[in-house]
Amino acid sequence: MGRIVQRRPVVRISLSGVTSRRPDALAVEEPLEIRVAGEPLSVTMRTPGHDVELAAGFLVSEGVVHRGSDFRSAIHCGGPGTGGAENTYNVLDVALAPGVPAPAPRNFYTTSSCGVCGTASIEAVQKTTSHSASDDPIRVPAEMLATFPDILRAHQAVFDKTGGLHAAGLFDAATGELVVVREDVGRHNAVDKVVGWAVTNDLLPLRGHVLMVSGRASFELVQKAAMAGIPVLAAVSAPSSLAVELAEQQGITLVGFLRGASMNLYAGAERVVVPVAPTAMEQVTR
Amino acid sequence: MGRIVQRRPVVRISLSGVTSRRPDALAVEEPLEIRVAGEPLSVTMRTPGHDVELAAGFLVSEGVVHRGSDFRSAIHCGGPGTGGAENTYNVLDVALAPGVPAPAPRNFYTTSSCGVCGTASIEAVQKTTSHSASDDPIRVPAEMLATFPDILRAHQAVFDKTGGLHAAGLFDAATGELVVVREDVGRHNAVDKVVGWAVTNDLLPLRGHVLMVSGRASFELVQKAAMAGIPVLAAVSAPSSLAVELAEQQGITLVGFLRGASMNLYAGAERVVVPVAPTAMEQVTR
Repeated sequence: MGRIVQRRPVVRISLSGVTSRRPDALAVEEPLEIRVAGEPLSVTMRTPGHDVELAAGFLVSEGVVHRGSDFRSAIHCGGPGTGGAENTYNVLDVALAPGVPAPAPRNFYTTSSCGVCGTASIEAVQKTTSHSASDDPIRVPAEMLATFPDILRAHQAVFDKTGGLHAAGLFDAATGELVVVREDVGRHNAVDKVVGWAVTNDLLPLRGHVLMVSGRASFELVQKAAMAGIPVLAAVSAPSSLAVELAEQQGITLVGFLRGASMNLYAGAERVVVPVAPTAMEQVTR
Repeated sequence: MGRIVQRRPVVRISLSGVTSRRPDALAVEEPLEIRVAGEPLSVTMRTPGHDVELAAGFLVSEGVVHRGSDFRSAIHCGGPGTGGAENTYNVLDVALAPGVPAPAPRNFYTTSSCGVCGTASIEAVQKTTSHSASDDPIRVPAEMLATFPDILRAHQAVFDKTGGLHAAGLFDAATGELVVVREDVGRHNAVDKVVGWAVTNDLLPLRGHVLMVSGRASFELVQKAAMAGIPVLAAVSAPSSLAVELAEQQGITLVGFLRGASMNLYAGAERVVVPVAPTAMEQVTR
């Protein structure tokens, strides 16, 4: 259970003037590498627990396993980066029954860029980011952030009727203006479209900007913000544990549950400015 | 714009007794294959539009493109399954500037099983499904379906505090009882865990069952239901266009916006039974 929910200190801001710092529960997100007979097949970002079921179900979806007897056993093994000495429980090796053909990795499609294990992924981002956001000195008023969800929503009007599209919007932190908004059935695609708009207009790194997304903040979205040099990522819903860890390591401000007049700051709280009583200010910037 | 939103006939049921059949707008989901210099790199399920930005942003996220001048041009080209004769606008070939190293496909991780283009994906599922749900004669009362979201929610209580987990629950359509529930930061992982539980308990195909998911219904989730022989997929939120298409082709009943006392039926409406006036019934089964 300890690996499913993680508690972390969070700064909670309400525009009515209340600011508090307290532990909050985060859904844990960690990578799982699924292997078949020792051969890496897939890496998925998942919540730990029921890993054997996850691997079995994945192999059903892939048309490899059709019945219980096709799936012989599965064992967590030492992963890359640990020298095989330490079991991270993030690598699962599956043994299929004799006669069950092993899957061909070529049949799978790819959607993201995470490395093999949590640590490896974070290291990979740090290595390849040429646009670090950690030294971006911008400050964003909490009152300005609070206006972003409605602005984003207003620009989704055309597609509101489907109820089926995620949105990502890029805001100028100096003026609070929406620079560009893109929508997609996939949240990561909406972010890719925004970053793609920026790079094709030669606007990278996106210093002084806030990226706002309509859903949750996953590891992958923080990674995309990091690669584009965006200093602040704000989400309407919850971040995952790994999203917060990566934001801290990359010096990115991570805002979650940005709704109405309140928001949670999970990392880089010093960039968010609250015009309230000095004691409360102190709590935020501490 | 015609490719972003698609209109389809939907049966709308309200337990207060109103049943209507009318067109509803769906967010379009189609695969995009991104190639670099003719080499396939990635396939993502996306909403068409801004494809060049999507590819450019994806390449930024992968650390391949760092500035506008790295990205030379992109062109939609004929895809597999079309004999190259027809442009589906679902294959985009990117040219990088001279000196920009092409990405290594080995750096990417895989998350799903879709083929290369929409048609190919659907054909692939039909070929590999050994558990067809199309002839499953079960009938599910709409009143029973309406109880599922609260039951699912009640079993999420432990993780409710994070606000960051998706849930998938398997229900027995004969009794309305919840058989198993699994949670994950990734919706597709939650479904894989449910199907994995079922296959390791030798319960495939899952005839006579309803799979309920906490979020939206994508192509990928319908595909997973099809592979497990599940006849009914119900979602709290909206389905995508390709999810509805695949559900129709696989003979799966697809329920969306299952909230409170109302729901939308996007495919296989004949399996949902409403105990109301004969004229309304007629509309549903037509």
